[in-house]
Amino acid sequence: MSINTTDSNTTAPTLLLKGAHETYAYRRLGGGIRRPLICLQHFTGTLDNWDPAVTDPLAFNREVILFDSAGIGRSTGKVPTTVAGMARHALDFLDALCVANCDVLGFSLGGMVAQQIAQERPSLVHRMILVGTAPRGGDDIMHLDKPSLARHLGDPTLTGYGVLQKIFFAPTPSSQTAGGAFIERLAQRKVDLDTPSSPEVAAAQMAAFREWEQPVGSRFSHLKDIHQPTLVVNGIHDEMIPVSNSYRLAENLPNAVLLAYPDSGHGSLFQFHESFTRQAAAFLASDSPFAPY
Amino acid sequence: MSINTTDSNTTAPTLLLKGAHETYAYRRLGGGIRRPLICLQHFTGTLDNWDPAVTDPLAFNREVILFDSAGIGRSTGKVPTTVAGMARHALDFLDALCVANCDVLGFSLGGMVAQQIAQERPSLVHRMILVGTAPRGGDDIMHLDKPSLARHLGDPTLTGYGVLQKIFFAPTPSSQTAGGAFIERLAQRKVDLDTPSSPEVAAAQMAAFREWEQPVGSRFSHLKDIHQPTLVVNGIHDEMIPVSNSYRLAENLPNAVLLAYPDSGHGSLFQFHESFTRQAAAFLASDSPFAPY
Repeated sequence: MSINTTDSNTTAPTLLLKGAHETYAYRRLGGGIRRPLICLQHFTGTLDNWDPAVTDPLAFNREVILFDSAGIGRSTGKVPTTVAGMARHALDFLDALCVANCDVLGFSLGGMVAQQIAQERPSLVHRMILVGTAPRGGDDIMHLDKPSLARHLGDPTLTGYGVLQKIFFAPTPSSQTAGGAFIERLAQRKVDLDTPSSPEVAAAQMAAFREWEQPVGSRFSHLKDIHQPTLVVNGIHDEMIPVSNSYRLAENLPNAVLLAYPDSGHGSLFQFHESFTRQAAAFLASDSPFAPY
Repeated sequence: MSINTTDSNTTAPTLLLKGAHETYAYRRLGGGIRRPLICLQHFTGTLDNWDPAVTDPLAFNREVILFDSAGIGRSTGKVPTTVAGMARHALDFLDALCVANCDVLGFSLGGMVAQQIAQERPSLVHRMILVGTAPRGGDDIMHLDKPSLARHLGDPTLTGYGVLQKIFFAPTPSSQTAGGAFIERLAQRKVDLDTPSSPEVAAAQMAAFREWEQPVGSRFSHLKDIHQPTLVVNGIHDEMIPVSNSYRLAENLPNAVLLAYPDSGHGSLFQFHESFTRQAAAFLASDSPFAPY
């Protein structure tokens, strides 16, 4: 277990860790006396998709750990077609890293994996931040064929991170400006870059979304069993995973605070990175058994 | 314009101020360089219904001003039967107090008055906190005849503030315990008490709720004109003014952050007074033109 205290995701070296079944690519930032914060990534995202404006301030007094699940970036293996399969890899990775208790930040698909982990191994998760995500059985999860998304995804003039600026941010000048700054921050990392996700990665993850949309038993009732203090965050105009999913999380998780940002879409945490990291740090610093902070 | 720097609503003397048409009862707490915070009260609430655990910490570095609208407590006049009529009195009061710019905390009915003020005289309102309230045209506003509320309001064993513990807090042991602490804090004020609201007060305010439920023009479109940075707060299990109303506020106000608390009802700000006052103070302290803080 090597320790690296590089403080930015722009410069942190990518490390490799052999787990029970696969070898995982990961990065470690910062350090301190607090529990580590494990960050679980969005659809097709790699280590390079973590905005340093979010990861770096959170690493101020704790270790922030980013990792590629199986089949993503430079991790070996195949991308599972269920969220439960992805949770299995996250647990294998954390076991290999000897992390027995941590905080979790799950964004989008990563937020679903976080919920699955909290249900499967509650002892592992201390506090949880779920951003732009949905409960199992949620509504309108990642339907990329809807016009508001398809027109950007099918736009041949958008290259590289350009598409993220369009689909992660609201169609307002202020949000698009924030989106431009976001992709500039991502582009600051020039070397030791991750392998971009292939169409096969996208297809497997999309299958996982479709499976996650199916309710199991009484809709949302399973959320009653997740007792960890949770901060649910969403942009109010999220087209990829609508904010109604965060409403359902906050209504059904017994111990969750909901924070919704104006003038923003799926990437609200990147748009309002100063507010988000301040709120997230205050939430994670709380020693209370209750979510309000 | 007398100044009083008593720091608690448990002990602050009640003052009287002659406005253009009526004489208003009010209290002032704290002081400091920041804009004053005007607090607008809930259905049938008087000056004595402001929880010192909320008002006092907010008065740490600003002046907090509580006031009775016309016909409430020791203010003269008749209770208007519209929110617009109540806003008229709030404006008359603030004009008489020579307050040209302030922050506003509106709780429940008071949050409706706050919205009306922000629309009628935007220059007056710097930042706004709307707790447990609804936009014009909102849903299920203060229907006290529904079983979850009627069983407490019709319970002859509940006296004094006891009914507030039941209807402001969720039916869980933790929320009811917080409700018990809340009514104990209110009861700490022993002298210079306000006149409790009569059934006539309740009837006029109830008429105002019914009028406020009627949409004007395209539903919620008027909220686009309220540009002040706004913090919208709600208990996730509010039976009096359901949280869906706060969702609609956050979705339609262009510059609002939504904060929803778990395990709580209408009185979420009292239940989580430590978190609420910390969040409210951070929000009010921001100099940004944008709501996120």
